[in-house]
Amino acid sequence: MNKQKINIVDMTLRDGSHAVSHSFSPEQVEKVAGGLDKVGVSIIEVSHGDGIAGSSVNYGFSKYPEMDLIKSANKVVKNAKLGVLLIPGIGTIQDLEEAHRNGASVVRVATHVTEADVGIQHIEHAKKIGMTAVGFLMMSHMGSPEKILEQAKIFESAGADYINLADSAGYLTPDGVKERVSILKENLSLPVGFHSHNNLGLAVANSIAAVESGATYIDATCRGLGAGAGNTQNEVLCAVLNRMGYDTGVDFYGLMDVAEEIVEPIMQRPQVINTPSLMLGYAGVYSSFLLHTYKAAERFNLNPRDILVELGKRKMVGGQEDMIIDVAYSLSQQNK
Amino acid sequence: MNKQKINIVDMTLRDGSHAVSHSFSPEQVEKVAGGLDKVGVSIIEVSHGDGIAGSSVNYGFSKYPEMDLIKSANKVVKNAKLGVLLIPGIGTIQDLEEAHRNGASVVRVATHVTEADVGIQHIEHAKKIGMTAVGFLMMSHMGSPEKILEQAKIFESAGADYINLADSAGYLTPDGVKERVSILKENLSLPVGFHSHNNLGLAVANSIAAVESGATYIDATCRGLGAGAGNTQNEVLCAVLNRMGYDTGVDFYGLMDVAEEIVEPIMQRPQVINTPSLMLGYAGVYSSFLLHTYKAAERFNLNPRDILVELGKRKMVGGQEDMIIDVAYSLSQQNK
Repeated sequence: MNKQKINIVDMTLRDGSHAVSHSFSPEQVEKVAGGLDKVGVSIIEVSHGDGIAGSSVNYGFSKYPEMDLIKSANKVVKNAKLGVLLIPGIGTIQDLEEAHRNGASVVRVATHVTEADVGIQHIEHAKKIGMTAVGFLMMSHMGSPEKILEQAKIFESAGADYINLADSAGYLTPDGVKERVSILKENLSLPVGFHSHNNLGLAVANSIAAVESGATYIDATCRGLGAGAGNTQNEVLCAVLNRMGYDTGVDFYGLMDVAEEIVEPIMQRPQVINTPSLMLGYAGVYSSFLLHTYKAAERFNLNPRDILVELGKRKMVGGQEDMIIDVAYSLSQQNK
Repeated sequence: MNKQKINIVDMTLRDGSHAVSHSFSPEQVEKVAGGLDKVGVSIIEVSHGDGIAGSSVNYGFSKYPEMDLIKSANKVVKNAKLGVLLIPGIGTIQDLEEAHRNGASVVRVATHVTEADVGIQHIEHAKKIGMTAVGFLMMSHMGSPEKILEQAKIFESAGADYINLADSAGYLTPDGVKERVSILKENLSLPVGFHSHNNLGLAVANSIAAVESGATYIDATCRGLGAGAGNTQNEVLCAVLNRMGYDTGVDFYGLMDVAEEIVEPIMQRPQVINTPSLMLGYAGVYSSFLLHTYKAAERFNLNPRDILVELGKRKMVGGQEDMIIDVAYSLSQQNK
């Protein structure tokens, strides 16, 4: 088989932003984006961790104005495309236009895996103003392959250039990735991308499973920088893809240097798998549930891990944090 | 399919010893081994990182006498078996007898993947004194599946109770694991085990690939503690095996607590994948080559990474460090 070209989407300056409390400075962005551009990644994503306009009391304030960060990246990005993430309800079409004026040429419109319809207008608008538009389905472990295909078709009809699946909770194992990517490759003509988290130590393996199922865009971050247990470690991913004979267009030695010399010194803590991030991946729930879960566990004298597992079983999603008390209450009744 | 029981071999107190410069104290061993015993791992391995009698100028001195560590573990290990690693040429039959008198009931006799014959007498002696004896093939990426089967048969003839393959350089991808484990399962009646390193971020995935190919003993360490990029992170492995429906007999919540409350405070640095460990896994060479390679690179004005890749191609093994100069010289001639 002639192996397909794999496009590396580096999100150090977006998902990685969670791991530095959204503190990237314009100078840091210029250095990281400049380094990534030189080594040949395809897309460099720069936004608040929760997408443009994420800076808020709910999601954490950015230390520097986000549009200044996009402008900084735009000064140095010459070969790659400069991208932003947009979560409808957090970012607006006005925010998108501003990001576009500041140099972003790609937008990934991210919705919950069952709610692609809320992103239709954003995809359509992005295409109208000449951007590359990506339909991005979060928490894809909560959707069956058939559901994911249905939702991807909504994005396709809106004009999306490719579909990106995200294992936002780091819950999936390689088999689950394969069936989700494969159904899209078999039924859509659009390229497919994949985004992993490392909560179960499977981020690289899941990325490889996606590639082997036909995905041609893979999300990653230098040193795995990212929320919770972090994302796919970009330099490790490129090492494995090199070894497997895939062309990424990335200068692997140069990428290792960007990770070690530019990104590592900015990091506030090493990216490891600890008990909370492991439990989130094991249960398949959002990290925003963690604090509320610990509180409920104390109140009802429960093991917080049992609450997380039950929340995962009930497929609770971000915004349903109030259900944690209900779940804790019913578990405490069962224990009686 | 009725899923086989998976035996967890915890080597926090053996391979993990590399990551703390062989400084485990009898008190620390007692706490870690006691915790591991309670949560239900099958074998607890306690030795210098390079096996019993590894404490030396070559491999690094242990801070405390190794036999005292084995005795400490033996005081608290009630359910698991207490094991040691023995590399012929480093440890001797006398060392093994002493370890056995101090409570070790399992010995894993570790040789290079093509040199099982040097371990025959150790396996035979271990069986004679009533121990469980394991044939352990290191650097298994350097052996073809057929070669590995041939070498495993040598251990089988000597009386080994099971065969353990080790991806000592963290080089293999899941396909390489599957073909190596499968050929043993198809041609031997002995159980098979697997030992991963995380240099390519694939330790958990490779362990799962081994299990799916029929391996029933998996090596792991709490928090992934180990040489270089570390080993398979035990609590993460057990999470994934739980999720996949395998019975490990391990109390997963309890194991997370051992990792977080007992092992993490002992660690000297977090277990991450950095440039040197990534390059070792990428090239497939021993970590003992690293320092010599950097020196040779400076002398011949080469990129040390190119030297490592060439060493891997030539299948250099520990003890052949003098070849590094030859390789560097020939690379420098090619560059002219």
